[in-house]
Formats: sequence, structure tokens, C-alpha cells
Amino acid sequence: MKEIIAIIRPKKVAATKAALEELGFPCFTAVPATGRGKQRGIANEVSCELPTELQGQGRSRGMKYIPKRLLSIVVGDTDVQPVVQAIIQVNRTEQIGDGRVFVCPIDDAVRVRTKETGEHAIL
Amino acid sequence: MKEIIAIIRPKKVAATKAALEELGFPCFTAVPATGRGKQRGIANEVSCELPTELQGQGRSRGMKYIPKRLLSIVVGDTDVQPVVQAIIQVNRTEQIGDGRVFVCPIDDAVRVRTKETGEHAIL
Amino acid sequence: MKEIIAIIRPKKVAATKAALEELGFPCFTAVPATGRGKQRGIANEVSCELPTELQGQGRSRGMKYIPKRLLSIVVGDTDVQPVVQAIIQVNRTEQIGDGRVFVCPIDDAVRVRTKETGEHAIL
Repeated sequence: MKEIIAIIRPKKVAATKAALEELGFPCFTAVPATGRGKQRGIANEVSCELPTELQGQGRSRGMKYIPKRLLSIVVGDTDVQPVVQAIIQVNRTEQIGDGRVFVCPIDDAVRVRTKETGEHAIL
Repeated sequence: MKEIIAIIRPKKVAATKAALEELGFPCFTAVPATGRGKQRGIANEVSCELPTELQGQGRSRGMKYIPKRLLSIVVGDTDVQPVVQAIIQVNRTEQIGDGRVFVCPIDDAVRVRTKETGEHAIL
Repeated sequence: MKEIIAIIRPKKVAATKAALEELGFPCFTAVPATGRGKQRGIANEVSCELPTELQGQGRSRGMKYIPKRLLSIVVGDTDVQPVVQAIIQVNRTEQIGDGRVFVCPIDDAVRVRTKETGEHAIL
């Protein structure tokens, strides 16, 4: 099993959720987060709306945190690639700030209601 | 060492915390989250309070996000089973929405105040 | 690749961010969290401001949740030690509540905008 952690734009959450559900993965956990990448938080969706002469000021004011949503989906090993591809397809605008996806190992899962473990707990 | 991540009902946090403390694990991190399982967020604690004739409407309106709390507890390998069992015992109502527990590998831990590492950092 | 998860005081986030950026790691995700360690949330920054005779009462009232920030930084294996050291250097006051750092395995990373994977996705 793997945990797929996607750090995405808040406005892409609904479309991502719909794509994952269509693919057969309705289960996830979402956490509000802030983040920044190597552009130090000068995301295009913000700075491109500023007049050019202000963009440098925006940078110098230190626009540091961009609101993001962290989605976590736990899937079986063979489902990692289709889920990651679906997340990329929905979230890729080719603009700075599209986010990242991380794949992390999970040793075990338990569904509390039924005490099922392993992949039975995530189906 | 393992990280135990429990996605549970907000109203079960206090009892979970008390059970973990009694078991000797007072340390944890909590994060507000939203989630849904394979019922697509139609958790019983919500829909069962609706008149029967409205429950289908509730589903069709797409009640998508159920407030949850994400608790993270880092424990030694031999403590995983008792901690997971304690979490299940407190959180299992056998109703949809009881949540899940994930067990994830952790390579190392550091207590910032003392610079202790490994299991010394989590005692 | 490793994910470095730091649970730190909110007032140390800006300095931690500056130290990581200076070290060449501007990218991170931050999540508001609450936590407590083995002192059960009686963090010094709170109790030391109480008159001595009230500190026991503070404990008995069960001051349980201390606001924290969870920072997540994903780095290459060889960068784990300098990043952890930088976080410790900024956050260590030697007072209770300095927080902890966890190092977790990451299997893969993808930059959504470019579809780069692995360490290329985190540079």
C-alpha cells in the first residue's frame, strides 16, 4: 500500500475529487495547508494579476504562503500510477503553483468499523 | 519506529487522547481534516438524523466532506499493536464514519530540546 | 528521498523558513496543528507566566493542546542531516515545547507542472 499525498490548488479540489471518484477512489482525507515551491510563493495566479511594475514589489514584500490543499489517498501498489496520473491530468495548468505529488510507503491500514486490515481496509 | 495516523470523528478525540494517555502515550499531534470513505461522505451520524424520505436527497445533494480529526502518534515497533487496538476500542461504533488507522514507517525522530534521537526522542 | 516533518512553535516558523531558504530549501508545506508531548501540553511558554501557586492548577485543569505548526520538507537523502540540524538550531530554546522532527521515507515525488519525477521534482 502507498499513501499518495497531493499538494494542490484549493480551486482544483472538487475536480480532483470527481476524477478520483470516477476512477474508483472515492476515499480521501483533506487538510488545509499553505506552501511554497522554489518560486518562494510567488505563484502565477497571484503575481500575474499585478501590474508588471508591482511584481518586483510583491516579491520584495515577501509573499510567502500560498493557500493549498493537502489531499491524502491510500491505495494498493498497482493503483499508484493511475491515481497519480489522474491527479496530474486535473491539476496541470503548466503555470507555477500546480503543486506536487508524493508517494509514501504505508505498512498497514485498519478500517475502525469492521477491524478489516491491509488492502481490505482501503477498498 | 512507526507513525500511527488515525482519522477519527472530532467528538472522539478527547476519549482517544485519554485512552492513549492511560496506555502511556501522552504525545501526539492533531490536525483538523475533512474526509470521506466509500460512502462518499454520507456518514450515518448525519443522514440518520434526516427523515427517511430526505436521506436520498442528502445523497443527491452530494454531502461530500465530513469533518474529521487526524491524530498522529509516533511509537516504537512493539507498541504499534496496543496503540492501534486502543484507538479502535474507543472509536468503533460500528456505524459508517468510524474512520481508519494507517501505520507508516518512520526512519528517525529528534527531540529538538535535547537533540535525543531514535526511540529516546519519542519516550 | 525523505520527508522531514517538523512540529514546531508557531512563532518559530518565520525563522525556520528563513534558515531553510538560506540553506537552499525554499520549498515546504505548512499545516496548523495542535500537539502535546510527555508534559501533556504544559508548555513552559504558558506555565512560566503563571504564579507558582497556579501552575499546579493549570496542570489539573488539563491544559491539553498547544498550538503548533507542522512543516513538511521533502529532500534528497544526503540533505536530511543539514536540514534537520538547521531546524534544531533555530527551534532549540531548551525549554519544554521545542518540538520534534521526524524523518520519513518517500518513494517518489512528481512536480505536477512539468511531470518531473524523483529528485528532479523536489529541486
